[in-house]
Amino acid sequence: MPATTGDSATTANYVVISSDCHGGADIGAYRPYLESRYHDDFDAWAAGFDNPYDDVKGPEAGRNWDSARRLAELEADGVVAEVVFPNTIPPFFPKVSLVEQPPGASAGDLERRWAGLRAHNRWLADFCADAPGRRAGVCQIMLHDVEGSVAEIRWAAEHGLTGGVLLPGAPPGSGVPPLYAPDYEPIWQVCEELGLPVNHHSGSAAPDMGDYPAASAIFLLEVTWWAHRTLWHLIFAGVLERHPDLQFVFTEQGTAWIPDELTRLDYYHGRLAGAGGASGSQEARFGGSLGKLSLTPSEYWARQCQLGSSFIRRHEVDLRHRVGVDRIMWGSDFPHLEGCWPWSKEHLRLAFAGVPTEEVRAMVGANAARVYGFDLDALAPLAERFGPSPADVAAPLAPADLPDESLRCPAFAAARFLGT
Amino acid sequence: MPATTGDSATTANYVVISSDCHGGADIGAYRPYLESRYHDDFDAWAAGFDNPYDDVKGPEAGRNWDSARRLAELEADGVVAEVVFPNTIPPFFPKVSLVEQPPGASAGDLERRWAGLRAHNRWLADFCADAPGRRAGVCQIMLHDVEGSVAEIRWAAEHGLTGGVLLPGAPPGSGVPPLYAPDYEPIWQVCEELGLPVNHHSGSAAPDMGDYPAASAIFLLEVTWWAHRTLWHLIFAGVLERHPDLQFVFTEQGTAWIPDELTRLDYYHGRLAGAGGASGSQEARFGGSLGKLSLTPSEYWARQCQLGSSFIRRHEVDLRHRVGVDRIMWGSDFPHLEGCWPWSKEHLRLAFAGVPTEEVRAMVGANAARVYGFDLDALAPLAERFGPSPADVAAPLAPADLPDESLRCPAFAAARFLGT
Repeated sequence: MPATTGDSATTANYVVISSDCHGGADIGAYRPYLESRYHDDFDAWAAGFDNPYDDVKGPEAGRNWDSARRLAELEADGVVAEVVFPNTIPPFFPKVSLVEQPPGASAGDLERRWAGLRAHNRWLADFCADAPGRRAGVCQIMLHDVEGSVAEIRWAAEHGLTGGVLLPGAPPGSGVPPLYAPDYEPIWQVCEELGLPVNHHSGSAAPDMGDYPAASAIFLLEVTWWAHRTLWHLIFAGVLERHPDLQFVFTEQGTAWIPDELTRLDYYHGRLAGAGGASGSQEARFGGSLGKLSLTPSEYWARQCQLGSSFIRRHEVDLRHRVGVDRIMWGSDFPHLEGCWPWSKEHLRLAFAGVPTEEVRAMVGANAARVYGFDLDALAPLAERFGPSPADVAAPLAPADLPDESLRCPAFAAARFLGT
Repeated sequence: MPATTGDSATTANYVVISSDCHGGADIGAYRPYLESRYHDDFDAWAAGFDNPYDDVKGPEAGRNWDSARRLAELEADGVVAEVVFPNTIPPFFPKVSLVEQPPGASAGDLERRWAGLRAHNRWLADFCADAPGRRAGVCQIMLHDVEGSVAEIRWAAEHGLTGGVLLPGAPPGSGVPPLYAPDYEPIWQVCEELGLPVNHHSGSAAPDMGDYPAASAIFLLEVTWWAHRTLWHLIFAGVLERHPDLQFVFTEQGTAWIPDELTRLDYYHGRLAGAGGASGSQEARFGGSLGKLSLTPSEYWARQCQLGSSFIRRHEVDLRHRVGVDRIMWGSDFPHLEGCWPWSKEHLRLAFAGVPTEEVRAMVGANAARVYGFDLDALAPLAERFGPSPADVAAPLAPADLPDESLRCPAFAAARFLGT
């Protein structure tokens, strides 16, 4: 799979692909992508909307939608291709769509928000077409409309959104069935048929935490768990069993949780599916639904799951053989301020110095190429201009030498202050 | 605190108190405890109710409410006192109240169910009075009625329910504010004022998982997490800061999770409360609400939290110094079939053989005496008749020698099949 062989496998620059970037249009720029029957509603909404985010308005926001600027900033950071998750506010949403679940939205709001996401998808297709082979755009759907989501996924496949689908969460209270419900079977079917990965990004699966003083701290404590649980929801509901070619990606939710979690899931799978359940045992009371799983959870993981390992930490890289070297995809979280951009080259040294070149090559780009269909050969010349060399990444970086400003990224702060 | 000193501290039988037992009345027996205005409703409800549980009807169910039988069965198991959580179905409930959250219940149902729980509390006060000093009954409340709950807690304190309060969960979709909401401040206040512990029992905090094939397996995978999260909800909402004398108990949700969880919470507390948050960092975005916490999460734990460590496993006992030897309270989960009853003596040997006597004494009874107000001196004569001696518990038990029927308890199954 790597584009390089022989000597060049050890000396060619790394083709660095960020598996976790974010982008979107400025609010007004969505209008032409919106079905015309929503234009009057849109004008009224946009006139009254007060954008609550500093980083998706103002002069810095342009990197979300300015194609040339974005390419230049990523290249300067050593990155030649990217997976594009949403970031800005689509029409009719009160917040960024990634963290805005539908609870409380009236049917009318849901219909209009769905139109807003479709506008984003159409804008995104054009944005990706501006840089062929370098952007895998991720299509947004809404779980309250499974049939419409299936149609949208087909549209996305036909229009070059190779990033696949962003699977929202379905937490309790969200008004849609949980992800282990059979209701979503048509979505799994169409993604498998079209070879599109299903992405689950941290932040999109948490419930409404309410407007309480401690809510934002507790959101931060729990946000990755809400995303993680989708792994066992899908496995134990048999989704990975019934769709062996379907690929899932768990993005920006850490890496270190995987080995112990797989051990735990394998343990429960053994208890629930095993034949030894005595009368009155939890096996007897809770088992029965698991007879159809032909693999263990860790075997499904190895076959069909991967991580978007945004700003992966060194102690997580040390777990790579238990996670699977082929399951880890580095990401920068560009343009988020808690990401490792614009210090990705420093981050790669922190995370990967001393790791064998071929393993680094897989984790920083080749795995993402496999999952999202990037052409490594086509990207190799760009990597020679912009990418780091194996020698660059192999040079250890002392945490004391990190720029102070970089400490806003948890990975850099942990390296400096915790030594991990 | 232990009742024994000098030589007797090493030779006296252990005063074994189960921090996790369950009981309740048969359905009809609740009627006289129900306010008379609900009697007609009750008769109509009871006539149509089909009890879904084999273990709270039929000949085995009597141990839930037959005082003499229960004492004899616990004594035969080596246990001289117990904390009594609910088990049977109170008036107007479709299931056992421990796992039945209010979502979807109409206001009328909530009012009637609340009357049903009050009837249980009154029955329980009589049941505890049947065996003075040997039963700490746990009072049930309903979170939709904070004012009424406070009144009920005062009633419970006046009527000898020394087990304190069963704090239900408040998961998303349950229709009540989350436990980190300020709404519950009057409950914390009255429990602190009266010196009543607040108990959070696994199973009571999970949301409605829906009626899907995988739901019961996923419930089993997640049920302890739903209970665990209450720990950080209460800490980060400042409940333990504002109420330094309030004691919390986390029951039947494992023990091994505590050391790593406290490390994680301390880490986040440091990030969120620390002064080093750079612009754009998560600290800057999410902090602010934590300035009022004068202790770290692990310090609150050591001051105000303990575990009801039902059928604790050996590898968890090995973590006791990181959890706190004074934080662990053994429990049998009587009369549940997944508990270690009627093999508690075997379980104590599996879990504690080789552990210093004074540490065992704390974990099997003295800690529970401190939290629930049992009088160890008064119980010592019963322990001499029924309890295991230090020499009994110090005798290792080979997992191969466990009765096959005991394997329905996960602790025994793990010892036999996993060696843990």
